[in-house]
Amino acid sequence: MRYHKIPDETVRRLPVYLRGLVFYSEKGLKNISSHDLAKLVAVNPWQIRKDFSYFGDFGTPGVGYDIHKLIKEISRILKLDGGHRAALVGVGNLGAALLAYGGFEVFGFEIAAAFDIAEHKIGQRVHGVEIEDAARIATLGERGIGLGIIAVPRTAAQGIAEEFVSAGIRGILNFSPVHIDVPKKVKVITIDIAMDLARLPYYMPAG
Amino acid sequence: MRYHKIPDETVRRLPVYLRGLVFYSEKGLKNISSHDLAKLVAVNPWQIRKDFSYFGDFGTPGVGYDIHKLIKEISRILKLDGGHRAALVGVGNLGAALLAYGGFEVFGFEIAAAFDIAEHKIGQRVHGVEIEDAARIATLGERGIGLGIIAVPRTAAQGIAEEFVSAGIRGILNFSPVHIDVPKKVKVITIDIAMDLARLPYYMPAG
Repeated sequence: MRYHKIPDETVRRLPVYLRGLVFYSEKGLKNISSHDLAKLVAVNPWQIRKDFSYFGDFGTPGVGYDIHKLIKEISRILKLDGGHRAALVGVGNLGAALLAYGGFEVFGFEIAAAFDIAEHKIGQRVHGVEIEDAARIATLGERGIGLGIIAVPRTAAQGIAEEFVSAGIRGILNFSPVHIDVPKKVKVITIDIAMDLARLPYYMPAG
Repeated sequence: MRYHKIPDETVRRLPVYLRGLVFYSEKGLKNISSHDLAKLVAVNPWQIRKDFSYFGDFGTPGVGYDIHKLIKEISRILKLDGGHRAALVGVGNLGAALLAYGGFEVFGFEIAAAFDIAEHKIGQRVHGVEIEDAARIATLGERGIGLGIIAVPRTAAQGIAEEFVSAGIRGILNFSPVHIDVPKKVKVITIDIAMDLARLPYYMPAG
């Protein structure tokens, strides 16, 4: 079964639910109400129920949702169940922060390769990953790495994206605040920290 | 005039439009069609027209939207027009990357203070900002800094949030992948990079 009709905004929330459900599962819980999940993930209970309704019915009145089943189903929908290996390009401050970041594992992600152009960095290990010469990005295809992370200065981002595409990368997480042009077969998600900061004042109470 | 009814998802896109409009404005353009703006920001033209309809009518058929008016209005709605000063806590790899990041200015943001607990960092300047002892977070209120950015390890995040609140901070951008409890008068936006990475495989074409 395919789920082509899930709205983007629901897809945006699914990882949030997934992390909350894993959190409860690790605490030994078997079932959870939309109300309790809502408290943890800061989404309205009605929104949670609506989101879950797109891909099935996992709730029992008075008992709540089956946590294990939901984790399995959300992972499957998000295509996270097989695990994913990602390559990072650019091991500056941001790249090093990404290598140190412990939050990827819960979603089955691993940063399995890191690249830079600075000669003094090549060969060094950062949080267990050896930094390779950026010329070796072309080897990613044969290494079974399908995701790419761009953490280079904005002027270099488009070039790296093109190298990723040539190497067979089909999903790119881009931290350079610049639009990247790739063929339709490749999905790019750009993360611009300033965009999130820019939403903050709107929600701040006056005075 | 207040805009209480703008959906969160529209608010999420407004900074994206704003950056695109500033980009075109700097190129000397006066008007833009929803179609041309759509190309730059990767949002459907109909979605743009719907989003703009929440706060007025800035379009003229055959001419397009008045870029200058739209920039002014979006800035006003997002409460960005007065400018904002933010304080950063935690000058590790991520914090240093944030201080180096050039994308805040377009939205009128400035990181005006940085704090850490590591003695060897205190007194140093990183990208023009002097790192202060975290004990001085309490001085933020009298310094007119209203936004806080948390870039500390997850175990320290809640404590920093509480210090921010005591110092009068009303908006927090949190990079620790952990839920933060604050009074209702304070708005928190948590950025979890893994959440964005977790959406990527869903959109990747098979094969």
